[in-house]
Amino acid sequence: MKEKKEKLILVTNDDGIEAKGLKTLVDILKPFGRILVVAPWQPSSGMSHAITVKYPLRLRVVENGEIHKYYSCSGTPVDCVKMALSVLLNNEKPDLVVSGINHGSNASASVFYSGTMAAAMEGGIVGIPSIGFSLADYSLDADFSATGNYIRLIVENTIKHGLPSGVALNVNIPAVGQENIKGIKICRQTRGYWKEEFDKRTDPGQHDYYWLTGEFVNLEPDAEDTDEWALKNNYISIVPVPVDLTSYTGIEALKIWKF
Amino acid sequence: MKEKKEKLILVTNDDGIEAKGLKTLVDILKPFGRILVVAPWQPSSGMSHAITVKYPLRLRVVENGEIHKYYSCSGTPVDCVKMALSVLLNNEKPDLVVSGINHGSNASASVFYSGTMAAAMEGGIVGIPSIGFSLADYSLDADFSATGNYIRLIVENTIKHGLPSGVALNVNIPAVGQENIKGIKICRQTRGYWKEEFDKRTDPGQHDYYWLTGEFVNLEPDAEDTDEWALKNNYISIVPVPVDLTSYTGIEALKIWKF
Repeated sequence: MKEKKEKLILVTNDDGIEAKGLKTLVDILKPFGRILVVAPWQPSSGMSHAITVKYPLRLRVVENGEIHKYYSCSGTPVDCVKMALSVLLNNEKPDLVVSGINHGSNASASVFYSGTMAAAMEGGIVGIPSIGFSLADYSLDADFSATGNYIRLIVENTIKHGLPSGVALNVNIPAVGQENIKGIKICRQTRGYWKEEFDKRTDPGQHDYYWLTGEFVNLEPDAEDTDEWALKNNYISIVPVPVDLTSYTGIEALKIWKF
Repeated sequence: MKEKKEKLILVTNDDGIEAKGLKTLVDILKPFGRILVVAPWQPSSGMSHAITVKYPLRLRVVENGEIHKYYSCSGTPVDCVKMALSVLLNNEKPDLVVSGINHGSNASASVFYSGTMAAAMEGGIVGIPSIGFSLADYSLDADFSATGNYIRLIVENTIKHGLPSGVALNVNIPAVGQENIKGIKICRQTRGYWKEEFDKRTDPGQHDYYWLTGEFVNLEPDAEDTDEWALKNNYISIVPVPVDLTSYTGIEALKIWKF
């Protein structure tokens, strides 16, 4: 069967409409078809799957081209996906939702906090093949030059094979030069968590406040099938993320409960 | 083995420190031991697993009793859990994290947007048995009188058996009188999504703005093993939610990809 040539791709992120990672991603995706960008108008890291219910949302046209269109939105990354699907596309379904490229890793437990991955999962929830891309470099001026070939390859595979039902992809790319990337590994999420160490300070009015800081604790640093191991060893990791948050092994285990 | 009698229970929610559901939950849990409440100081529905990275966080002492302590926090529900564990408990681990009682259902896809469930999942990520409770009634003055006996029963089972490894519980309670509740069912998450219909308005400055509204689309209304079916048929639903966001069937399916 011949592929429909021109794809409609919804692109978003959580670092905001001005982010270098977003611009890089759009340039990589343009050859696949029409691009609709709807991205937060300010950086929205750590927003996870939050939606805006207390305030109304606003949209700004950034560039209304014939083929490629760019909007920014006052809301969260997931709000951007919802606004795109419901307001801008009038319920025409994009062929893909692609989120990123995030400035910073979303491997292991970071997937829970990530607005980049939540936007991709929102696409998955409504049945659209969806991918979040992240580069393991938090700097605003991160070097994305090694990402293009791999992102193209992953998008081509997604278009050719589709994605498994009920799954979005969490793709993390190590922050090394292209010559050092060893390849792509399908991984599972590393067991681990962020251990917080709040930085306590006192404001001029003598009230305490706390800055969230912390470090990642990897509970299985030697497990070669995990995303953290892949990144540390210069592989790109792909974790398929479910949009069904049921633990089926948990259902079995709970059968001993008595009510 | 004899159970340690007095449990330390961290309680939070997403409707805020003043919510009736939170007060109801604390009253139900007090007989189990010491309670530490850390709840958002304003309602924070739809915040999912968001964390506050752009602004510092603040804590307020609401009541510093000898046995039970109440704090409010300027951040999200997940911030509350992190502040409790890292700042207030000095890394003493609570025996349980209990979140709720949410004013409104968190069944099916609502689990993704829910701050109540994210707080419970945050407890699960750091290895603490954690439960989110929700009543399928959004009103501020919802009637929680039927919830007590069932919440006690679920907490007792959790203390007696522990929870399956890497799992938190998403418990939803139908908004009917106790005499109409048929029992408790272990369920899977219903396949479904929220279909948005943004309410477009124009402000006095002639700029458009949009209110997020929508309705839930149940893709499998007749599936008797789902949480939505349980609620509609007056059962309490328990869905075990994983803290490992890997789709293992997805890993198998991706093996056909060529890199």
